Amino acid sequence: MRQRLRELGVSIGALPPGPTNSLTDVPGVWVGHTTIVLDTPRVARTGVTVIVPREGRIWQDYACAGFHALSGTGEMTGVLWISDSGFLTTPIALTNTHQVGLVRDALVAYGSRHGFTPFSALPVVGETYDGWLNDLDAFHLQPEHVFDAIDRAAPGRVREGNVGGGTGMICHDFKGGIGSASRLVSAGAGSYTLGALVQTNYGERRSLRVDGVPVGLEIGVDEVPAPWKQPPPISSILVVLATDAPLLPHQCRRLAEHAAIGLARAGGLGLHTSGDLFLAFATGNSIPARSTGTLPMTMLANQDLNPLFEAAAEAVEESILNALCMAETMTGYEGRVAHQLPLDRLVEVMRKYGRLGA
Amino acid sequence: MRQRLRELGVSIGALPPGPTNSLTDVPGVWVGHTTIVLDTPRVARTGVTVIVPREGRIWQDYACAGFHALSGTGEMTGVLWISDSGFLTTPIALTNTHQVGLVRDALVAYGSRHGFTPFSALPVVGETYDGWLNDLDAFHLQPEHVFDAIDRAAPGRVREGNVGGGTGMICHDFKGGIGSASRLVSAGAGSYTLGALVQTNYGERRSLRVDGVPVGLEIGVDEVPAPWKQPPPISSILVVLATDAPLLPHQCRRLAEHAAIGLARAGGLGLHTSGDLFLAFATGNSIPARSTGTLPMTMLANQDLNPLFEAAAEAVEESILNALCMAETMTGYEGRVAHQLPLDRLVEVMRKYGRLGA
Amino acid sequence: MRQRLRELGVSIGALPPGPTNSLTDVPGVWVGHTTIVLDTPRVARTGVTVIVPREGRIWQDYACAGFHALSGTGEMTGVLWISDSGFLTTPIALTNTHQVGLVRDALVAYGSRHGFTPFSALPVVGETYDGWLNDLDAFHLQPEHVFDAIDRAAPGRVREGNVGGGTGMICHDFKGGIGSASRLVSAGAGSYTLGALVQTNYGERRSLRVDGVPVGLEIGVDEVPAPWKQPPPISSILVVLATDAPLLPHQCRRLAEHAAIGLARAGGLGLHTSGDLFLAFATGNSIPARSTGTLPMTMLANQDLNPLFEAAAEAVEESILNALCMAETMTGYEGRVAHQLPLDRLVEVMRKYGRLGA
Amino acid sequence: MRQRLRELGVSIGALPPGPTNSLTDVPGVWVGHTTIVLDTPRVARTGVTVIVPREGRIWQDYACAGFHALSGTGEMTGVLWISDSGFLTTPIALTNTHQVGLVRDALVAYGSRHGFTPFSALPVVGETYDGWLNDLDAFHLQPEHVFDAIDRAAPGRVREGNVGGGTGMICHDFKGGIGSASRLVSAGAGSYTLGALVQTNYGERRSLRVDGVPVGLEIGVDEVPAPWKQPPPISSILVVLATDAPLLPHQCRRLAEHAAIGLARAGGLGLHTSGDLFLAFATGNSIPARSTGTLPMTMLANQDLNPLFEAAAEAVEESILNALCMAETMTGYEGRVAHQLPLDRLVEVMRKYGRLGA
Repeated sequence: MRQRLRELGVSIGALPPGPTNSLTDVPGVWVGHTTIVLDTPRVARTGVTVIVPREGRIWQDYACAGFHALSGTGEMTGVLWISDSGFLTTPIALTNTHQVGLVRDALVAYGSRHGFTPFSALPVVGETYDGWLNDLDAFHLQPEHVFDAIDRAAPGRVREGNVGGGTGMICHDFKGGIGSASRLVSAGAGSYTLGALVQTNYGERRSLRVDGVPVGLEIGVDEVPAPWKQPPPISSILVVLATDAPLLPHQCRRLAEHAAIGLARAGGLGLHTSGDLFLAFATGNSIPARSTGTLPMTMLANQDLNPLFEAAAEAVEESILNALCMAETMTGYEGRVAHQLPLDRLVEVMRKYGRLGA
Repeated sequence: MRQRLRELGVSIGALPPGPTNSLTDVPGVWVGHTTIVLDTPRVARTGVTVIVPREGRIWQDYACAGFHALSGTGEMTGVLWISDSGFLTTPIALTNTHQVGLVRDALVAYGSRHGFTPFSALPVVGETYDGWLNDLDAFHLQPEHVFDAIDRAAPGRVREGNVGGGTGMICHDFKGGIGSASRLVSAGAGSYTLGALVQTNYGERRSLRVDGVPVGLEIGVDEVPAPWKQPPPISSILVVLATDAPLLPHQCRRLAEHAAIGLARAGGLGLHTSGDLFLAFATGNSIPARSTGTLPMTMLANQDLNPLFEAAAEAVEESILNALCMAETMTGYEGRVAHQLPLDRLVEVMRKYGRLGA
Repeated sequence: MRQRLRELGVSIGALPPGPTNSLTDVPGVWVGHTTIVLDTPRVARTGVTVIVPREGRIWQDYACAGFHALSGTGEMTGVLWISDSGFLTTPIALTNTHQVGLVRDALVAYGSRHGFTPFSALPVVGETYDGWLNDLDAFHLQPEHVFDAIDRAAPGRVREGNVGGGTGMICHDFKGGIGSASRLVSAGAGSYTLGALVQTNYGERRSLRVDGVPVGLEIGVDEVPAPWKQPPPISSILVVLATDAPLLPHQCRRLAEHAAIGLARAGGLGLHTSGDLFLAFATGNSIPARSTGTLPMTMLANQDLNPLFEAAAEAVEESILNALCMAETMTGYEGRVAHQLPLDRLVEVMRKYGRLGA
Repeated sequence: MRQRLRELGVSIGALPPGPTNSLTDVPGVWVGHTTIVLDTPRVARTGVTVIVPREGRIWQDYACAGFHALSGTGEMTGVLWISDSGFLTTPIALTNTHQVGLVRDALVAYGSRHGFTPFSALPVVGETYDGWLNDLDAFHLQPEHVFDAIDRAAPGRVREGNVGGGTGMICHDFKGGIGSASRLVSAGAGSYTLGALVQTNYGERRSLRVDGVPVGLEIGVDEVPAPWKQPPPISSILVVLATDAPLLPHQCRRLAEHAAIGLARAGGLGLHTSGDLFLAFATGNSIPARSTGTLPMTMLANQDLNPLFEAAAEAVEESILNALCMAETMTGYEGRVAHQLPLDRLVEVMRKYGRLGA
């Protein structure tokens, strides 16, 4: 049975997690998955994960947002709009490389159908490449899969591992997928929640670190084989950060960039052929869709951003590790196998390096 | 009958145009359009325009490229990849707002089908909003329309006005669409061609300028009605610049930004709700798709960039005006009409302001 | 006698100017100059211009701010801090290329001496190159010149032409220098002032336009000689935009970028070897220096930014032309002469092109 | 006696270091320091470190370069020029916060005096804040100190710890300063050297990690006191990366950003009030100062960048740790003390966590 990192006794960082230790701890942030696993007529190991802020009212009540690309071999639609307007105006979807477009247009259609204008036409959809386990050229996803994921989005602990957009993903040469974590933060007399959700599909085995321990060297590809002899051409990580703190757009951009800290600590290197794309949004301000004139806003003082930066680093690191801990061995396209991270061995290694009681 | 600006006797700037005064003057750069005009079952006034560099071999032989957004209320996929890698690795497509995704996935499929890997999966597709004349929620475009545009791409003068992605576009409250122009440049002892292609869908009437003359004030909305009483919510301009000069990626980014100069001279303001997105590519260096090790490159010295910057400003300005001169009055969705720029009046106004012989 | 453009009967754009048609129309924004003109022992034609927001309290009460570089052959210190923090925390100084550093450290010292900590140590100082008329290697400026300019800063119409940082500058091959203009704006039920101040030192004669009229072609270098046979190596324009509208930092960045529109209309091309650097700040929000916790802010809705973008374009265009109209012929280093724009000829040319009554 | 990390038996990463394991392993890259330590009349604990590429010929033979700011509470002059031109055209200097300007102007003067025009006037100078140990308002540095550092620049192992710009710096609440490291890289059939030099002045004790081991938690402020009760207002890290690989400017920017990976692994968080500024240059291409026309260049294929990215992460991490290992306890301004990292305790902690043989 798979367990999250913390259930194994390993904690990342100093800050406490929220109730479910996942993105949905941020009030009003919902997550929905559609997972497609088929063996015939063509092999499907793919899906879509949708993040729906404000209990579904994000189309009418925008959130501040910002974007950063550590490494740009990837696609995330909608980020020109976010960087310029400062606002997230739609749900966010994560999917595979070949169907970013379909998912993007489906979000447009969904918004259009529900009258969510005018800025529903520039949605945020990111991708990572699942073509090793998934027959990508079968173009499995249909608009209905996207609509379903939106309609199924709900609060409560995020499902992790082989679900949604993460279904066919591979990370540090283990089976990867969706992971999530959260942190509770005191910043400037206020208390806030920060959540992270990642779709992990990056990295070589040898660089994997768990709380600084070189797990990827200890559990090498001689022990647990990598899915391939040579690395595949495209691999990536998508990070979505959410907080209920009242950050302005330029502060969200900085928060997004701090995902790199957590990624680096887990062993990420921002490699070429990796699309390491980070989006952060903050629900602490309400921007009604058709606002004109002046709006009252609240800003967390820059001096108080640091606990959120630290929370972002911790939550991203733990989200990646949760994805690895929760994903299960998968056999897919052309019989290829991606093995799960063996949790018993992980515990052994952590002990060896003085991180768990003997 | 419609005529291009230069046929009316008005020249923009000091540099000479190439043989066809259009983007395709850049050797190896081809353009193809698919235009969809239907009245039943649902009104279609839309399409897709495809720019295919290197006579179709762009998938195997990359070009240096760079991107700039003057105003970000728009979408252009593939630009994270271009900004990071420095290379254009696919054709470029221009289409409508609701189907950027479909066109993007179709380009992926086209590349995949032809074995154009690995970097065919991050194509460049931009959009502007044609929902005033086109029933956008009918989602008219199919992948075949994109394949056809690619297959039809050819050298020779670019068709302008109501074609391809420009079919349903509106500019300065006149009928807009596709426009193009080119310049021949001497830079640092070399001779180069720079071409521009624009998909124009921006701007109020009053701000239109032709070679500095306030044409938009002279031919006001009292004389030639605007298509609407109130401006529509989203409007934009896409600019693609190409040159055979050996520019490196960081020089291409600068070239792209200079599209703003030409746009400003024609009356563009980079407004909010406008996606003013500029892409520049340079074919003067060849980057084979699976290159490893070191590659020989050629760089035009920074000192010699200025003629290209000037050419970009001129070619963008003239491309916009060519789009206006060549587009014809169109009646579309819900009987709405976008009127063409009256060329006889344009000539009169230019005379009044001392720009054409009496 | 020199006159501003508007005194000659030429207006730029559609929006009305403020009472003094200069940067200081923005409430609380003061400007001070120190001008150094010496013939012995070494020739000095230089100085420093200081912009002091909030009646001198900018060190304790920050303003939102943003930055954009159209062309980066130039220096503006402090912009990394502004882009990251979102705030202007010191006065802004404009000076010559070789002494940006001295002026920068002098601002630090001034802030330190007055106890204006902690963020007085990252001040904004921009430069353009006056080494044609000024013996730049004499390093004329001393910290006291900077202190004096700050202490002399005052409200009221900005002095233009050969003053302060603009003393030795050259623009479109005429004598250039400091220029300013302002606009009154209605945006979203509110009324705001936008002001521009420029230090002009860019451009070739032939590209100069006044309200679209090709003045630089009409008053060529055969009629009024350029100061040089060959263009000098470095030339630039600095633009400072200020408004009392409640813009957030990401909106200020966009506003800054719109300076390019006004520059383009006056004939600017953003050339290599030009540092075309734009800073915008907005005083509509108050950010006390040692803020912690949450602060109330006000945001002008994005939908209402467009009048400010238009005002920025107009004010920059007119500021440049005011610099040219107010600067006087100057003889400087090694007997070189930069000739003023002849206003009588300017009026004649404007008439010829139908812009002034016969 | 102080020892470098590797002398203690701790290695960072997988790649081998160069002969001196410092920046100067990159052929032609020289480093010079001027260190100012005075107790009267005012306390000085400051200096300047100069990096001189191409054995001093960088003014005449430019190098490709790129810049990234992880956190912008800091100053680095010259980066607008580098980002736009793509080239490093002067030496690089690192110094204190209050005298960036003086050092910058001194570099201009040095270049001017030696006839190194035209692009000597936009030099790169970064700063971190040494005002805790150094009486910063005494403005100790004079231009001669800068000239001396340039003239003293030499090949051979870089001096580390309390020298040059690093003299008065503090890192993770231990005495910090200058650190350096290098890596030998095989990339695409070529062999290259990558070197890093850091000026460390950032971070809290608790976040320090050495090869993943939580050293900052083990050697807490109860054991080795921090220099202060409350963190000082401004702290930062400057990173300079150099390589002899033939990287183009856009590749250098990416390399610079990867300094964040190494910083994160050592415990850096990119905090607000920190200026975490990264510059990378590559000497593999030669760009003569007055180049016109076309230049032959060589580009390392993007596919082969990853070893350099990994080398950058490793070298930055080890440089930071070398700075901590080599810096010695210092008493400075107002009798304040910054304690050195106790190397015996470091070794103990590393053993405890299974990183050194028992």
